Amino acid sequence: MYQIAIMGFGTVGTGVAKVIETNQESICRRLGEPLRVKSILVRHFKDGPYRSLMTDDFQTIESDKEISVVVETIGGVDAAYTYTKRALMAGKHVVTANKQLVAEHGNELLALAKEHHVNYLFEASVGGGIPVLPPLTQRLAANRIDEIYGILNGTTNYILTKMVQEGMPFSDALAQAQALGYAEADPTADVEGHDAGRKICILADLAFGRRFDPAVVPMEGISKIDLRDIKIAEDNGWHVKLLGRCLRLGEFERTAYVAPHLIREDNPVSHVNDVFNAVVVRGNATGEVMFYGKGAGELPTASACVSDVLECLLERPARPEIDWSEDTDGFVDPKEIPGRFYFRISGSIAEAEKLFGEVLVLKDGEESALIAGPMTESTAKQAASKLSVLAQMRVLD
Amino acid sequence: MYQIAIMGFGTVGTGVAKVIETNQESICRRLGEPLRVKSILVRHFKDGPYRSLMTDDFQTIESDKEISVVVETIGGVDAAYTYTKRALMAGKHVVTANKQLVAEHGNELLALAKEHHVNYLFEASVGGGIPVLPPLTQRLAANRIDEIYGILNGTTNYILTKMVQEGMPFSDALAQAQALGYAEADPTADVEGHDAGRKICILADLAFGRRFDPAVVPMEGISKIDLRDIKIAEDNGWHVKLLGRCLRLGEFERTAYVAPHLIREDNPVSHVNDVFNAVVVRGNATGEVMFYGKGAGELPTASACVSDVLECLLERPARPEIDWSEDTDGFVDPKEIPGRFYFRISGSIAEAEKLFGEVLVLKDGEESALIAGPMTESTAKQAASKLSVLAQMRVLD
Repeated sequence: MYQIAIMGFGTVGTGVAKVIETNQESICRRLGEPLRVKSILVRHFKDGPYRSLMTDDFQTIESDKEISVVVETIGGVDAAYTYTKRALMAGKHVVTANKQLVAEHGNELLALAKEHHVNYLFEASVGGGIPVLPPLTQRLAANRIDEIYGILNGTTNYILTKMVQEGMPFSDALAQAQALGYAEADPTADVEGHDAGRKICILADLAFGRRFDPAVVPMEGISKIDLRDIKIAEDNGWHVKLLGRCLRLGEFERTAYVAPHLIREDNPVSHVNDVFNAVVVRGNATGEVMFYGKGAGELPTASACVSDVLECLLERPARPEIDWSEDTDGFVDPKEIPGRFYFRISGSIAEAEKLFGEVLVLKDGEESALIAGPMTESTAKQAASKLSVLAQMRVLD
Repeated sequence: MYQIAIMGFGTVGTGVAKVIETNQESICRRLGEPLRVKSILVRHFKDGPYRSLMTDDFQTIESDKEISVVVETIGGVDAAYTYTKRALMAGKHVVTANKQLVAEHGNELLALAKEHHVNYLFEASVGGGIPVLPPLTQRLAANRIDEIYGILNGTTNYILTKMVQEGMPFSDALAQAQALGYAEADPTADVEGHDAGRKICILADLAFGRRFDPAVVPMEGISKIDLRDIKIAEDNGWHVKLLGRCLRLGEFERTAYVAPHLIREDNPVSHVNDVFNAVVVRGNATGEVMFYGKGAGELPTASACVSDVLECLLERPARPEIDWSEDTDGFVDPKEIPGRFYFRISGSIAEAEKLFGEVLVLKDGEESALIAGPMTESTAKQAASKLSVLAQMRVLD
């Protein structure tokens, strides 16, 4: 029998216990032996079916030789960071859904895992239940990955879907997302793009093999999106989505950012709605491949954690391809990467064309909307400073 | 250095050689050593950059101890079957894109591979460059897989896209697909659903652990689809797609089939157009997860083959989860599985409702269109025999 511990027993932690219980049969078929949760680390004991497994003392887990894998679902950095290090040093595999910890300290924790011949796996940190990291690191290994982009945050996608489908203003849609439990009481990390930003950093780290520091990756959220721009976009065959995106620019040069984008309706990503996530990986041989599913939630995220637990237990060598260099050099500010931009201006298309040359017209009148470029964001901002710009957004080409 | 052989040098075989050449750097990073094509088995020698590697004698490959993996891209059963068996018996891993061979003899070849401690991998047989089999067998292992459905054939999806977007009749769209090289001179395997049928059998074999015999899985293609039904569907928020689908019905009971379906436009699969493929896997923990990308073509398919080659070479134990029982018992005729059905009839909705009870009305008049059910196909056919049915199609719910 294999035995594991769960640290933290919120939504994801509870889900992990449930998935192991419910799907014991298929898990056992895969492992050849049953899998059991032996200990659950909590701060405060809670009654319920798992009460007898709870402990508030990390040391009982750390020193328990029977526990071979620890699932960290504490979240954040502090305690999660400390316990993860100690678990790895005690020779236990660690599996996590904690994107903040991976984005900020992934390097160090992976190195520590290698040193102790165990795995540090974090499939659940990106895309919840969608299996995207192993395809990226293993199955697309015959490709040079040139770009990854996607809808990486379910809360903001839910809000945008409400804004589009029901013409609901941002603040009302946010309130509804909070009422449904999709958004936190403090929604900053979601709506300002930080959550998506951590995820694009992890994807980019793995795809390009060098560290993306979340502190220097520009992240813009959806709180400033106006319903008028959504309407103009929709009327012209475009959808507005919050994307995380990273691009290979040269051998070492690369960029990443999070920002709202206009996406053509013939791109399947534009039809990803509600709390669903989608990640598009562009390889030089395979072209664009998309992974789609529920990016959050108790069971999908837990399913990814348990799948990582199985991976750890199947006695393969620690996976060497999950790795990236600590080197952050070569990061190019996305402002300097040419792309097309959407503008809504107070004024006519003729005025815009004086500055931008020929543009794609979405609306002409006293208030006009257009797509201009390709040009860098710096150039766009400079040109736009001579216009009365009411809204500006990136366009995904 | 790792050395491999390619058998057959058509589109996919050539692609394999190209991908290995172009992406030598990322392949080498993953393998720790270079990868080289040592021999190419052909029936007729062809001039070109690979001329010096060609042989028409399988024995030179079979007896070459330096060749550890053979990529079979011959296609069909006969020679491919014989050489695959001999290569496995000679202790070489075999990688293939040959869905017919896998669907018909996968069992036997997997058993032979296990016996000789090598792998028989066939990622490229389903979904071209989309990594779908490893997520299914490895990453969703913490799930009970309940259903898989998808657009598994690029040629028919291209034809349907032309019919929808340009109102082109089936025969014209087929001719265009042939002119572009998307469809064979004899398009039967594609347009009658056999190609999609082999693929759904392979997915179902892996997901449910028991053999699906392509000979008993009903396969219906797109040659009878009328533009009028496409138009009625589109006007009502539905799209018409050819789907392969398999369902878990009980512990052993299961079904599979290929047929055109009406799909709601809020299902992302309905927006998968042109030669793209999409596979949806429904797990009891992760919910619906979709994999999307180019399902065919030289480089995407070759990329999947090369990725399987790397998998074979990375000295992991032969993958035990790629396996299914030979047992074909428990297959239930999909005619007996309840679902909804689309009908176009000569007559009014009132007439239809006398038979079906309340229906979803898509068009009322002298010619009417409706969605009825849930009911089994047998019931549907029986009821419909009392109506003047002009067209009938499954509905994906």
